[in-house]
Amino acid sequence: MQRDREIHWNNIPILGIIGGGQLAKMLCQAAGKLGVSTRVIEKSNDCPASQIASEFVVGDWEDPEVLIDFSKSCDVVTLESEFVEADILKKAEDAGTVVLPNSDSVRIVQDKYFQKTRLVENGVSVADFISVETEEELEKAGQKFGWPLVLKTRKLGYDGKGNTTVASPEDISRAWKTLGGGKVSLFCEKFVPFERELAVMVCTDTDGSTVTYPLVETFQRDHICHEVVCPAEASDNQKQTAIDLAVDAVKSVGGIGSFGVEMFETQTGQIIVNELAPRVHNSGHYTIEGCYCSQFENHVRAVLSLPLGSTEMILPQAVMVNILGEKDGEGWPGGLPKSIGNEKVNIHWYGKTKSRVGRKMGHITSIGYSREACLKAARKAVENVYDFSS
Amino acid sequence: MQRDREIHWNNIPILGIIGGGQLAKMLCQAAGKLGVSTRVIEKSNDCPASQIASEFVVGDWEDPEVLIDFSKSCDVVTLESEFVEADILKKAEDAGTVVLPNSDSVRIVQDKYFQKTRLVENGVSVADFISVETEEELEKAGQKFGWPLVLKTRKLGYDGKGNTTVASPEDISRAWKTLGGGKVSLFCEKFVPFERELAVMVCTDTDGSTVTYPLVETFQRDHICHEVVCPAEASDNQKQTAIDLAVDAVKSVGGIGSFGVEMFETQTGQIIVNELAPRVHNSGHYTIEGCYCSQFENHVRAVLSLPLGSTEMILPQAVMVNILGEKDGEGWPGGLPKSIGNEKVNIHWYGKTKSRVGRKMGHITSIGYSREACLKAARKAVENVYDFSS
Repeated sequence: MQRDREIHWNNIPILGIIGGGQLAKMLCQAAGKLGVSTRVIEKSNDCPASQIASEFVVGDWEDPEVLIDFSKSCDVVTLESEFVEADILKKAEDAGTVVLPNSDSVRIVQDKYFQKTRLVENGVSVADFISVETEEELEKAGQKFGWPLVLKTRKLGYDGKGNTTVASPEDISRAWKTLGGGKVSLFCEKFVPFERELAVMVCTDTDGSTVTYPLVETFQRDHICHEVVCPAEASDNQKQTAIDLAVDAVKSVGGIGSFGVEMFETQTGQIIVNELAPRVHNSGHYTIEGCYCSQFENHVRAVLSLPLGSTEMILPQAVMVNILGEKDGEGWPGGLPKSIGNEKVNIHWYGKTKSRVGRKMGHITSIGYSREACLKAARKAVENVYDFSS
Repeated sequence: MQRDREIHWNNIPILGIIGGGQLAKMLCQAAGKLGVSTRVIEKSNDCPASQIASEFVVGDWEDPEVLIDFSKSCDVVTLESEFVEADILKKAEDAGTVVLPNSDSVRIVQDKYFQKTRLVENGVSVADFISVETEEELEKAGQKFGWPLVLKTRKLGYDGKGNTTVASPEDISRAWKTLGGGKVSLFCEKFVPFERELAVMVCTDTDGSTVTYPLVETFQRDHICHEVVCPAEASDNQKQTAIDLAVDAVKSVGGIGSFGVEMFETQTGQIIVNELAPRVHNSGHYTIEGCYCSQFENHVRAVLSLPLGSTEMILPQAVMVNILGEKDGEGWPGGLPKSIGNEKVNIHWYGKTKSRVGRKMGHITSIGYSREACLKAARKAVENVYDFSS
């Protein structure tokens, strides 16, 4: 990857980040390693990135004026979530801010119906889908695709929120109400029985150079990414197919920076794209310890026009297990030290001041030579966090 | 290392750090990964740690009142340098602050004459030494130890500052003046022709549990640590001897947290301790990528009474090369992107706003299977930083 490249910075660059969650925190950590300063905006300072940002601004990034003001002292602004309205990002761009990924990419990705349309236009395989404006259109879609089918909100869905399976025509009314049909825009997808879920992280820089991380298998619990195993068990051919698909998907939306590409392997062995995340992604957290250059550092490099780093794995296996809150309470559970004491696992504790049931509180990465040993070590460490038995 | 252990923290601990240089910055990064908040005090905010500390306080930590005030909202206070006067730390302790390593340890270590005396009392091999109050005593020491000998300041010496070689009796007057004899306390050491320099990082927690990192070989340039190669080429027996010596040395001063132990291998193959650093150390920077748990993270764990992590190496070889400023100017040299683009090296750029000749600006770590390949990759990356030829 060593290349000649225009030098953009005369002094330490300042990277702006919209959003202050754990993704922003890990971006700040990667930026700090490169000596890059960070400037984070979030609605409250009670968030993980406030623990580590060079400068932390409390402000409502949904207010274009606030965002433009925040952006003025940043060299580049990036985002930790796909929920920043593209129109607001566009206003910042019009005011002279460099936003990466840019508002055009975000606009396409944040509306899943637009996103899928764009993917199909570029020959990327996805499940059949159609927009539905009324319950009648949903019924027609069912007649076309067969039952069950999946009803989704076009915007703001994540971790299983914003979608529901419609079992039969009798289920339409419930599903429609559940997702707020009529008030929010919906679309539906053909139900694809899948064998497993896969993901690839893709990172593209401002010159269009692209690197890809290995194909991983992801395991969800209650619709939330729970475990990631790298590499996925797959033939070389399957891996290449998935990676090519992921690159095509990101290219089709003009993505700059790290993008997560979630995929299904269907029961017939076909790989299709489920959805894109225009940002660093939970399925890539393992790259911090697992790869020579993490998804976070490559994102920072990409948006600052610095050369991308190696995505190669350091050891043959890496496993990531999320730590989801198991009780409400303080942000430093009593079992945390025991968890930290597990050998050869890496704990990332996000520093949220309150623990809540189901909340992403941290994650554990284990790297090694055996998938089973890594999984065992990581799971054990996760169990310890909320274990008060000893 | 999994052990039952008293739980100290009900919520996120706050680690205070005295000093804001790159060591403090890397401690903040390690703390952040564990969700620990950091509070850093330094005399100016123009320093690496201000880029990443949770809270940064500009203040004169040599003023006991300032330090006590700073410490009030910290759970534990640690230091990034041995130059914080033990008397001032003692005042903070008397006011209720937990300082680790404590003022007793720092007091012994920061006066090299006391330090060596304590080491000898505990059977740790060092070069012969004696305190000298006058030029006449220095001459007597030369008669005892032979010429040349090494004259040193008892306090505040580092990176070759605070010591000079006295070639012969005729050289006494120059050496005495150079180091400020009569105004500052000096001592002298027998000149030991050494074969090479070695180092071991030792980390001890508040329960007295100790972990050690592998024996490394260090290479100095102009008295500044320039390259570190891990592991040192040595027999198992030699390695064990060095590690035992390092542990004994740290124990003899009651050290808590990560301590650097610099050693010489003499021309007769004996290993002796040169000096201790009561803090994370340049010879242990390689542990960030090289080991499962770095010297920085283990220091944070140790002083917060969290279980210590594995010091095992991830790959068989690790190499660290310092990036020393090669010209005065801005803190983001034009060759930095090219350096960042070197494959499979990790760059830590400290984010100092100004580059100065000889200043430690960052470091490069390379891990792999071949010592030569790692050295080549790391050196190439370092050369690129100040290379404006392309």
